[in-house]
Amino acid sequence: MTAHAKEVFRSYGIGPIDTPALEYAEILLGKGGDETDKQTFRFTDQGGRDVAMRFDLTVPFARFAAQHVGALGTPFKRYHIAPVWRGERPQKGRYREFVQCDFDTIGATGVAADAETVCVIHDLVSRISRQVEPSCGEFTIRLNHRGVLNGLLDTLGLRERATDVLRTLDKLPKVGADAVRAELIALPEAGEEAAAKLLEFAVLSGDAAETFAAARPLLGGSEMGLAALDRLATVVQLAVDGGCEPSRLVADLSIARGLDYYTGVIFETFLTDDPKLGSVCSGGRYDDLAGLYTKQSLPGVGASLGVDRLLAHLEEKAGDAGARPNDPRAVFVPLLSEERLPEVFALANDLRTAGFLVTVAPETRGLGKHLKWVTGRGFGVAAIIGDDEAAASTVTFKDLAEREQWTVARAKAAERLSEWRSEKT
Amino acid sequence: MTAHAKEVFRSYGIGPIDTPALEYAEILLGKGGDETDKQTFRFTDQGGRDVAMRFDLTVPFARFAAQHVGALGTPFKRYHIAPVWRGERPQKGRYREFVQCDFDTIGATGVAADAETVCVIHDLVSRISRQVEPSCGEFTIRLNHRGVLNGLLDTLGLRERATDVLRTLDKLPKVGADAVRAELIALPEAGEEAAAKLLEFAVLSGDAAETFAAARPLLGGSEMGLAALDRLATVVQLAVDGGCEPSRLVADLSIARGLDYYTGVIFETFLTDDPKLGSVCSGGRYDDLAGLYTKQSLPGVGASLGVDRLLAHLEEKAGDAGARPNDPRAVFVPLLSEERLPEVFALANDLRTAGFLVTVAPETRGLGKHLKWVTGRGFGVAAIIGDDEAAASTVTFKDLAEREQWTVARAKAAERLSEWRSEKT
Repeated sequence: MTAHAKEVFRSYGIGPIDTPALEYAEILLGKGGDETDKQTFRFTDQGGRDVAMRFDLTVPFARFAAQHVGALGTPFKRYHIAPVWRGERPQKGRYREFVQCDFDTIGATGVAADAETVCVIHDLVSRISRQVEPSCGEFTIRLNHRGVLNGLLDTLGLRERATDVLRTLDKLPKVGADAVRAELIALPEAGEEAAAKLLEFAVLSGDAAETFAAARPLLGGSEMGLAALDRLATVVQLAVDGGCEPSRLVADLSIARGLDYYTGVIFETFLTDDPKLGSVCSGGRYDDLAGLYTKQSLPGVGASLGVDRLLAHLEEKAGDAGARPNDPRAVFVPLLSEERLPEVFALANDLRTAGFLVTVAPETRGLGKHLKWVTGRGFGVAAIIGDDEAAASTVTFKDLAEREQWTVARAKAAERLSEWRSEKT
Repeated sequence: MTAHAKEVFRSYGIGPIDTPALEYAEILLGKGGDETDKQTFRFTDQGGRDVAMRFDLTVPFARFAAQHVGALGTPFKRYHIAPVWRGERPQKGRYREFVQCDFDTIGATGVAADAETVCVIHDLVSRISRQVEPSCGEFTIRLNHRGVLNGLLDTLGLRERATDVLRTLDKLPKVGADAVRAELIALPEAGEEAAAKLLEFAVLSGDAAETFAAARPLLGGSEMGLAALDRLATVVQLAVDGGCEPSRLVADLSIARGLDYYTGVIFETFLTDDPKLGSVCSGGRYDDLAGLYTKQSLPGVGASLGVDRLLAHLEEKAGDAGARPNDPRAVFVPLLSEERLPEVFALANDLRTAGFLVTVAPETRGLGKHLKWVTGRGFGVAAIIGDDEAAASTVTFKDLAEREQWTVARAKAAERLSEWRSEKT
């Protein structure tokens, strides 16, 4: 999965960074809340230093960015795929070591970086879900902007109550509209009218243009809210210009992740056939990455791919589908006797040079045993050189999905197999 | 670098495994010697468990193989690229966290796995050194077989003294032949004749066929020694059949790494223009990987790529060469005004779909500033859409190496740039 993610990042010119697993404890602690501090693996090393293992990639990246921003210059883009550690009790889908995958554009405040982030999320999730489902598992990227919410709260005189209001609205799917309405009305500054508007707003979701049109009158002329709505509309339009499938981009004015951290666009991504998995790629725009480590303001926009969630989903799907699908590039070369090794090695080299992924059997066995082992392991074709083939300077190919076989001249083997492969793909 | 290594492994059908960074301390400790134990990061976790961070990949892989061999079956091939940690004082080229890259074929005793290991080493080192030096930095894989050494020691009656003899011979490059001869003669069981034979043997190195021919008479009919010599000759021949450049395979009967661990072929790899770097890829055949963890004998053959050494070398080379070379796949798209964003995003998507790696500038700047920033960053071409290009539905490409530019119809942009790229590569 991370190989696919890296190729997507590379196609956008986003380069990798890495930071050490161990940092001085004072760098990591106190940055992620008490719960995180408790879960952080911390010890005194051989040199008497108080060190800790990173519990996320955001804090080490902030330290890294503050330290190197002079040399890097802004704006810059980077991705970071690495394990993090948390000393919590392991449970289904939660491990003490797990991989995080973050990417960010730092120092760019314009709409281009917002929209490109949506394009990268789109390509990441479509690329990865296509691995298991060739037709590409469907998904939606849900978009909002903190300014839209804040604008609405301003017009309702509830800006100071933002945290309470948003927490209450978050309960909507669980407790229903009536309970939420009652709770909203109970807030000191709110009333029936405000509660009604908030509820109307919180269910605005769907086609971007329609949602924005419906939200506009609710914002009561709030400049901040309207500007945010315009920015969001531009982000969606540019993402479509940049190749995103329009039906996958959904405006959802109820999402409000990272109450304090995010300040602009925010994103969540849900798989259509497994929404309960939660968001598989989330992020947004923030005002300052590294305020704790540098006086230079580092605004940015980025997201985090939920590698473990996606892996769990893909494994389940792959389990449903049974064995690995036959990959026409994957060639198995059975070894029938040690005398045939020179021909087998030369053939494997020819096929590899032609771009095939070639597994030579490491030990001699009978053909039947070899072909039994190969079943369900994802190979597309076997390339067989037995004594007959060696004597005639030929190779026998066996299509492992269709169970057909054919024999070709050794000198033409790579060329013929490449033709077979282009027919298959 | 590890991306290249993974592609090579994949082309040989060698799959990845990963193991956790933290293991129970009792799994790791006592396996690598006192020095290693002292350097291992060890602590008590939140659940009161005595845990440690892996200090190499061999011990965790042995634990993994012992645990999963039932499900995996033998033979199997795998690679493992991951960080390891040692609490030693950091110094040039030695870090407290560094990446190891191991690959092994387990459960195969035949010559095929030995020879394939040589082919993989060959492809790894040529692929990686080609990154910086397009003509491929030259290197030699030096091969020996423990049986050749043991056979010679047998005929000299010195098998019990193997460790002393090999340690003494290892000093040859430093102290010279006379000092080594004197030290050998001083060993209780050795004499002048044995010392002379050992010295003659220790300098046998070079063309494989000639070296084997010269070694044969020195082995005094030792069955073990002659069988080992034959096996080594077959390994070299098969590696050449499998595509290795013959001049890069050098027999070197003096290398004797891993006195206790390796039992068959052994390999070391040296860069021709930086031999002092030491071996950048070493390994060999061993009798049993995981005797400490399972009663099942797991013989294997494998090697370890010196990622940090190679990185240090490549960085030095890249430093020599100055800026990164222009990659014709890497396209930079300057952003000249926010109004041009729709055209810029659509063009970037077209080029990405055609296989280009496309960096869109995240912020608006003047063209001169953009082109200044781009210098030395490895881009092959800039794809420019200013107001003139937008009005005429065209794109201007600028070859960043040749400083030539040309304008094409927007609808043909990806096709034309692909043609330019095929001329360049």
